[in-house]
Amino acid sequence: MKNFMWWNPTIVIFGEGTISQIAVQLSAVGAKSVLLLYGGKAIFKNGVYTQVTDALNENKIAFVELGGVKSNPRVDKVREGVARIKAASVDAIVPVGGGSVFDSAKAIAAGALYKGDVWDLFEGTAAIESALPIYGVLTASATSSEVNNIAVVSNPEQDKKTSITSPYLFPRVSIIDPSVQASMPESQTVNGGIDIMAHVLERLFDGAEGAELIDEQGYAIIKSMIRIIPALRESPDDYVARSQYAWAASLGHNGSMSCGRDPRGDFSSHKLGHSLSLIYDTPHGASLSVMMPAWARYLYRDHPTPFARFAESVFDIRGKDEEDRAAAGIDELERFFRSLGAPTTLRELNIPESDIDRLAKNASIFAPFGVLQSLTSEDILEIYKLAY
Amino acid sequence: MKNFMWWNPTIVIFGEGTISQIAVQLSAVGAKSVLLLYGGKAIFKNGVYTQVTDALNENKIAFVELGGVKSNPRVDKVREGVARIKAASVDAIVPVGGGSVFDSAKAIAAGALYKGDVWDLFEGTAAIESALPIYGVLTASATSSEVNNIAVVSNPEQDKKTSITSPYLFPRVSIIDPSVQASMPESQTVNGGIDIMAHVLERLFDGAEGAELIDEQGYAIIKSMIRIIPALRESPDDYVARSQYAWAASLGHNGSMSCGRDPRGDFSSHKLGHSLSLIYDTPHGASLSVMMPAWARYLYRDHPTPFARFAESVFDIRGKDEEDRAAAGIDELERFFRSLGAPTTLRELNIPESDIDRLAKNASIFAPFGVLQSLTSEDILEIYKLAY
Repeated sequence: MKNFMWWNPTIVIFGEGTISQIAVQLSAVGAKSVLLLYGGKAIFKNGVYTQVTDALNENKIAFVELGGVKSNPRVDKVREGVARIKAASVDAIVPVGGGSVFDSAKAIAAGALYKGDVWDLFEGTAAIESALPIYGVLTASATSSEVNNIAVVSNPEQDKKTSITSPYLFPRVSIIDPSVQASMPESQTVNGGIDIMAHVLERLFDGAEGAELIDEQGYAIIKSMIRIIPALRESPDDYVARSQYAWAASLGHNGSMSCGRDPRGDFSSHKLGHSLSLIYDTPHGASLSVMMPAWARYLYRDHPTPFARFAESVFDIRGKDEEDRAAAGIDELERFFRSLGAPTTLRELNIPESDIDRLAKNASIFAPFGVLQSLTSEDILEIYKLAY
Repeated sequence: MKNFMWWNPTIVIFGEGTISQIAVQLSAVGAKSVLLLYGGKAIFKNGVYTQVTDALNENKIAFVELGGVKSNPRVDKVREGVARIKAASVDAIVPVGGGSVFDSAKAIAAGALYKGDVWDLFEGTAAIESALPIYGVLTASATSSEVNNIAVVSNPEQDKKTSITSPYLFPRVSIIDPSVQASMPESQTVNGGIDIMAHVLERLFDGAEGAELIDEQGYAIIKSMIRIIPALRESPDDYVARSQYAWAASLGHNGSMSCGRDPRGDFSSHKLGHSLSLIYDTPHGASLSVMMPAWARYLYRDHPTPFARFAESVFDIRGKDEEDRAAAGIDELERFFRSLGAPTTLRELNIPESDIDRLAKNASIFAPFGVLQSLTSEDILEIYKLAY
């Protein structure tokens, strides 16, 4: 095991009927006014907006509202939040929504206590030296932003998508009531589920040695997700499956899966998928179900061990030859993605074969990347070809 | 999954060569003087004492020393620590040792800021309203005290062994350098290893429904320990195994294994074993390797599911009949304990059969107890008979 540092200071309050606790927690620290941050109409439809605002009102906590946070959240909305807080100071920020709302809340929390423009913090030209406390209500699980200290924000003017990380950015409290996620559309359950799996797989496939204990923790999450996602497609309001989905999401990307291994994870599939999202607006989960099997097939002959161990532990694949087991495990993973109705080829995304060069060029801007194997622009081109 | 609340605010710094970080962390919060708390001679033999004091000296942090903390730590030593701090105030407490040293540090940390006698906090006649910060160096993994907020202390005058729990008792920082545990005697590696497994098994065997994701996390730890303990008996300085042993210990009892299930765990085997330790001074691990299989055999016919699922997931036991799978899994667990040289019967502990009534009476003081099945004093007697 490699050396590591780990903690998880966010207090998670998990379960059905816990949303009103947000106001109790805010009252306990004497908060009198908050910025209530959210996305679109979902929280009005599923009743979460009412639950949160009723609880705030009952506890006499005033709130300023800011809605309209989009997925792939943007710096202009963050600036709007910062300006709102600078005009009418608040004691805390209350994101109510999914990962993009939490990410925006973190950026606003840091930006509100910084004199200059918040984008400086993303550019690294200024350091995050403090942040407003965040007390959030999660309504869509996938990114794990509710339990980590990372915020990813886009700046379309500069064509950049960048992250900030700081110990000040851990939410103080995150409420996760899985029952409100029953109204999540099936496509989001599937895409989010693949993303949750990919957060873990990017670590399992990093080639780390001596991290079997953490590998086993990861296999456990993957095996659970293979059970959970189909169960939710069948019955979206299956609370047991929905709650395990939510907790798997938190565990998968709260840093615990990196303990004892390269803290970066491999994340090549994420980077290769990113170009699909950028150029064709492919949903994040779909970009992963296409690129991860292709990436794995390109590499497994040179690095069979992590794939073979995955095949044995998750799919119970036996046999003498490590390379064969590795290949069979990748096949099974792809078959599982297909069983969810997720795409596994570029062709299914209606991307013309002639675009492969363009895709490779776009992804190669960041090359070389990857931990299991450092990918050159030639490697990247070959992987997109395999994905076709 | 049941509702739960979880966090882990302790900053864990893990790995070889990390011990000097303790002083860096103390300096970062401006600590000028600390109470250095430890047990016996082990930290002088393995060089940890020198590493810690060198680091404190280099960072100009003064320290008052208090040694002699024993396993099953006692309130008199805690009182000694509290008196020491009240005489010469310090900014933090630095436990250097295993679980008993950490437990004592927590009790001293709370007692030092309480006006009355520290035992009041254990009796519950006074509440813990604050505590000195704890910055610890772990030298023996098993109890998980380095990452939880629990302290167990004995009061021999009153023949009591009681715990305190408070959010103030989480260590701020815990340094875990597994390499210093290579000098741990084999018997301690085995007993501690069984204790680590038992912390997880007491949860897995609680009969919780809908917690499969957490079950899987637990199976992963058990499977790892089945690999790790024999490896360490073979090669005590196998760093990879030693580091996984250490991290499994922390994960097993940091609260994460209780998420979504009864927060108490079953812990009947611990309670049944406690009488063995009390009357015959049986090591904690040995008391568990004897009582857990007997407890499981007494109950599995009425509650086959958790044992059958354990058998399948950990020992790959298949077969149509759930009860058969359950029995086979218990057999395998017992066989594993025996393979470590651990006792699995009262007979092996040289306890006379005529003492069984006495044992049952002692354990029955706390009856009924247990979550999977609430045990009466009749049940308890039968389980000790089975254990003979």
